[in-house]
Amino acid sequence: MTSSLYTPTRVTLGRGAEDALGDELRKDGAKKVLIHYGSDRIIDSGLMKRATDQLDREGIGYVLLGGVKPNPRLSLVREGIELGRKESIDYIVAIGGGSAIDSAKAIAYGLYNDGDVWDFYTGDRVPEGALPVGVILTLAATGSEMSNSSVISNEDGGLKRGCNTDYGRPKFALLDPELTFSVPPYQTSCGTADMMMHTIERFFHSGASLDLTDDLSIALIRNITVNGEKALQNPNCYEARKNLMWASSLAHNGLTQMGNEQRGDWACHQMEHELSGMFDVAHGAGLTAIWGTWARYVYLDYPERFAKLGAGVFGIKRTGSPENDAAASIKAFEDYFRKIHMPVSLRELGINPSDKQLDELADKAVFFGKRTLGAFKVLQRDDIREIYRLAR
Amino acid sequence: MTSSLYTPTRVTLGRGAEDALGDELRKDGAKKVLIHYGSDRIIDSGLMKRATDQLDREGIGYVLLGGVKPNPRLSLVREGIELGRKESIDYIVAIGGGSAIDSAKAIAYGLYNDGDVWDFYTGDRVPEGALPVGVILTLAATGSEMSNSSVISNEDGGLKRGCNTDYGRPKFALLDPELTFSVPPYQTSCGTADMMMHTIERFFHSGASLDLTDDLSIALIRNITVNGEKALQNPNCYEARKNLMWASSLAHNGLTQMGNEQRGDWACHQMEHELSGMFDVAHGAGLTAIWGTWARYVYLDYPERFAKLGAGVFGIKRTGSPENDAAASIKAFEDYFRKIHMPVSLRELGINPSDKQLDELADKAVFFGKRTLGAFKVLQRDDIREIYRLAR
Repeated sequence: MTSSLYTPTRVTLGRGAEDALGDELRKDGAKKVLIHYGSDRIIDSGLMKRATDQLDREGIGYVLLGGVKPNPRLSLVREGIELGRKESIDYIVAIGGGSAIDSAKAIAYGLYNDGDVWDFYTGDRVPEGALPVGVILTLAATGSEMSNSSVISNEDGGLKRGCNTDYGRPKFALLDPELTFSVPPYQTSCGTADMMMHTIERFFHSGASLDLTDDLSIALIRNITVNGEKALQNPNCYEARKNLMWASSLAHNGLTQMGNEQRGDWACHQMEHELSGMFDVAHGAGLTAIWGTWARYVYLDYPERFAKLGAGVFGIKRTGSPENDAAASIKAFEDYFRKIHMPVSLRELGINPSDKQLDELADKAVFFGKRTLGAFKVLQRDDIREIYRLAR
Repeated sequence: MTSSLYTPTRVTLGRGAEDALGDELRKDGAKKVLIHYGSDRIIDSGLMKRATDQLDREGIGYVLLGGVKPNPRLSLVREGIELGRKESIDYIVAIGGGSAIDSAKAIAYGLYNDGDVWDFYTGDRVPEGALPVGVILTLAATGSEMSNSSVISNEDGGLKRGCNTDYGRPKFALLDPELTFSVPPYQTSCGTADMMMHTIERFFHSGASLDLTDDLSIALIRNITVNGEKALQNPNCYEARKNLMWASSLAHNGLTQMGNEQRGDWACHQMEHELSGMFDVAHGAGLTAIWGTWARYVYLDYPERFAKLGAGVFGIKRTGSPENDAAASIKAFEDYFRKIHMPVSLRELGINPSDKQLDELADKAVFFGKRTLGAFKVLQRDDIREIYRLAR
């Protein structure tokens, strides 16, 4: 049994990283770029002009497509593909966070391949390539700037689905921590939770783990918890923002599953996808709202794993009882989530699914009977419904 | 000030990783491969046949060039370039450790570029590319399987010089820990020391460090120390060998300098290069033989840095005096080196440079007055001579 890592993204980290945009595009021979982004804050802040000035200098053409929303929509992806075809786009630059990047990746798949791009998200087809994507990151959270992942929401049916292929790994990622100074507290907390969870999901599985990967994962999560708090206290703390920004990339580029026998649990992520598909909640908040319930539902299968994590991240003392230590670790994580004002129940998340909606969430999570969730503990449809219910 | 990371190598880690050789070469469209290796143990063990069987299956041609020695020689590199030209080689596969990989990279530079390949190592010219290189690793040590580095020794003048470019990063690295079960104790220790030192060199500089990078570096070094000892006690311990193998790659691929203001000190590496250029000692052993002396020569410039490292790696208690804690940390590292039977002086390394040789070593280390060494503390020619002298 082997595991693999492929992280070809050229990463630049530090003040002014975005000034390398022109160089990076020239290296890759870009001719005409679709610049994809969310709100007009990118324009108002002057960032867009600093980007397009570089393209002008390099003689590289471009068109803009804004309007990406959190939980990026398939409809805008389709619009981007149409625009890209019309404009003979050969490169896509996302300026923003995970939503802009994921949407850019989806457009890149759509422009490279024939047929309906949604097929790659339902798993009905596998893409044969993608246009190159580059990133100027303005939000430390999803790690999409180095990951193979793209998650898109289809308004038709409220489905949120991911497409993971190495074609989706960005060519370059420009990480300037100062661009995240203006991220509001709630989004800072959601991002902190998201990168913690990317590492935690990979930490839990039922195979053997590589000690080195455990050690690096624990160091990463501990660092995220410390700097998440610092960034909330002082949004303009360059060091805290810089740690978070690089942590977001490392948390989801595959490093933290290297050498492990399994690629991680991911049940919480899948369950959250259904929540935000149905209720349009923030991904990071959706994750913390169910993680504790999930953890208490599964931890007795192998409490030592939770105890190790809590000891490493929060210094939970080992008492000789892995069960007690595991319970204390789960509590420590929930306490941390509360401290950064993240919800630890669906009620705190602001939603209250009806019994009928619990059924719908559980059915969607198992793809209507086509799969189970989880690797640490395999969850059937009824387990999933029960976790949703207990998390209310 | 920005820092960059580029790690495009496709890594496969685990039992049987070498069985992916044919797939990896096919992906890259290899037509005719130069297989470069050291001793005939590669043939006797059956590994070579398992490799060439895959090439036969894929219809990929190959020629063999063995004979790489530790501190790989320029003369064999020249032979490889000549052979490669004659045989129209378009891909090079190194089977072995850092010496085979570094020699393969040098051949790859020579085959891609015109002129004398040694120019790239003296710094007189910069390569414009390189043939693709792939790796089956049989020794966890130098990290050359993911790094941009190649170090070659020129018999004419006893010079050992490095060439670092992104063209030198291997396309793929196949890491099967079982292939390192037969590595003898001395080489296991040298490898352990080498990967520790790759991380330690980057830890010491005079700029600001990213906390996350410090945390990951400390976790990495601690893991290396634990598994180095385990592998010595039980050479067939799969888990220990697996941790060391992945650690060797991470220690030198650039991860542990990301976000730091400077790329590290590297004085010990440069001083060791001159030692092994003149006396042909093992790289890892040469490093431990001078590190403690270097550390005591420089630590008072910023003792806190040594104290932090010792606390993280060996749990050295903080006493309130960074000077004392730093001294205790240096001692803890030297104690560890002794425990894995590595030398902590030139005498223990088995050499005793004359006063005249001290002058020659120092002159070579500063490229005859053309540079200084070090970033944590900048060392002039006379500092370097003094460290060599004190290390005797």
